[in-house]
Amino acid sequence: MMYRTEMGRIHSTAVGELAGDLEMGSAAAPWKSLLLSALESNAQIKHSTFLHLATIGANGRPSNRTVVFRGFEEGTDRIHIYTDSRSRKIEELKTCPFAEISWYFTESWEQFRISGRIEVVDASCLDATKFKKRAEAWSSISPKSRMQYLGPSPNLPYIAEQPAKEPVLDSCSGPVDAFCLLVLDPDQVDYLNLKSAERKLFKAIPCVGRETLWESERINP
Amino acid sequence: MMYRTEMGRIHSTAVGELAGDLEMGSAAAPWKSLLLSALESNAQIKHSTFLHLATIGANGRPSNRTVVFRGFEEGTDRIHIYTDSRSRKIEELKTCPFAEISWYFTESWEQFRISGRIEVVDASCLDATKFKKRAEAWSSISPKSRMQYLGPSPNLPYIAEQPAKEPVLDSCSGPVDAFCLLVLDPDQVDYLNLKSAERKLFKAIPCVGRETLWESERINP
Repeated sequence: MMYRTEMGRIHSTAVGELAGDLEMGSAAAPWKSLLLSALESNAQIKHSTFLHLATIGANGRPSNRTVVFRGFEEGTDRIHIYTDSRSRKIEELKTCPFAEISWYFTESWEQFRISGRIEVVDASCLDATKFKKRAEAWSSISPKSRMQYLGPSPNLPYIAEQPAKEPVLDSCSGPVDAFCLLVLDPDQVDYLNLKSAERKLFKAIPCVGRETLWESERINP
Repeated sequence: MMYRTEMGRIHSTAVGELAGDLEMGSAAAPWKSLLLSALESNAQIKHSTFLHLATIGANGRPSNRTVVFRGFEEGTDRIHIYTDSRSRKIEELKTCPFAEISWYFTESWEQFRISGRIEVVDASCLDATKFKKRAEAWSSISPKSRMQYLGPSPNLPYIAEQPAKEPVLDSCSGPVDAFCLLVLDPDQVDYLNLKSAERKLFKAIPCVGRETLWESERINP
């Protein structure tokens, strides 16, 4: 399986209850256990890690495409996605970093809508920690997948002629320029279970200098 | 199957070729036959009519959710989707009518990204033709599906208490207020076949008082 199942640190700051039937999670990212559970119960479905990522296009219209979930960043709720830095979503995200995932699990009939901000970690990134994460992501993918990043630029007109010789990739070398790591930091998750007709909305509570806290509320489907 | 397979009228105005390797379709909506073919080859998959619809949220961020393809409008390339008029996508579409579908066929490994403008046909619609379309849409869904539109308002906090008595719906009556027909009129379709690594971009050519013409171009995946 391509995703990691480590749950990371449990954030356990108790913050009491809000008014009404709004409940506060005593552990951060309570939606993460639901998502890991959905991944597990749908693990036999080969496309269960395929999700749909919406961004704002350069023309101000919505933009939407299928991508692959590559796991959580270790010890966090942040979601990893790999992409080609020459794809349109990169320029879109540099203009508007917000995205929403729509992810439907066909076996368990569960939908996750995960909204948040995406950080683009590409070849220009100088931060040592992010540089390392990108290198680790590159080393985690298959040689065949790596070759895709050496292909012609996505979106450009197709030219039938093949290059004179196939590009060669040293298996030990680091990521090629086109390889890009996207890190989605969720701030809202809308969970719907179509079997039980239960729906729950999770929202991150903005707080400075502390671990993220989440509030959750059951809402009508 | 919930979708209709009629191909509608063939628009056959020849318009000649554009420069480069850009080719003009001699029939409108050449992507429609690809989509109908994908629906056919994935028909045994019960979720093959589930697609992901991105809109622009009230906060200017992308919004994305799973919906069901309900077929093409007879004799056109327009796509029908049913929804609850109390759902957030309605207010979103009234502010920004543009949407993009991301639709992945898990059996044939085909992706369609269908971009266009959505018209909301709800209970307030006075146009006789649209009024009829909405009524036909309502009569096409099952009694169980109809009951969903009588449930409590989506997104509002869940209240555990059940209503004093179950709502009763006359099977012959027309659509309830909450039933809403969305009509997506595509102006761009990005088709990707992951088995053959072929990708084709279809664009509607704006033309006044004539049937829609489409140009298509093979691009890099």
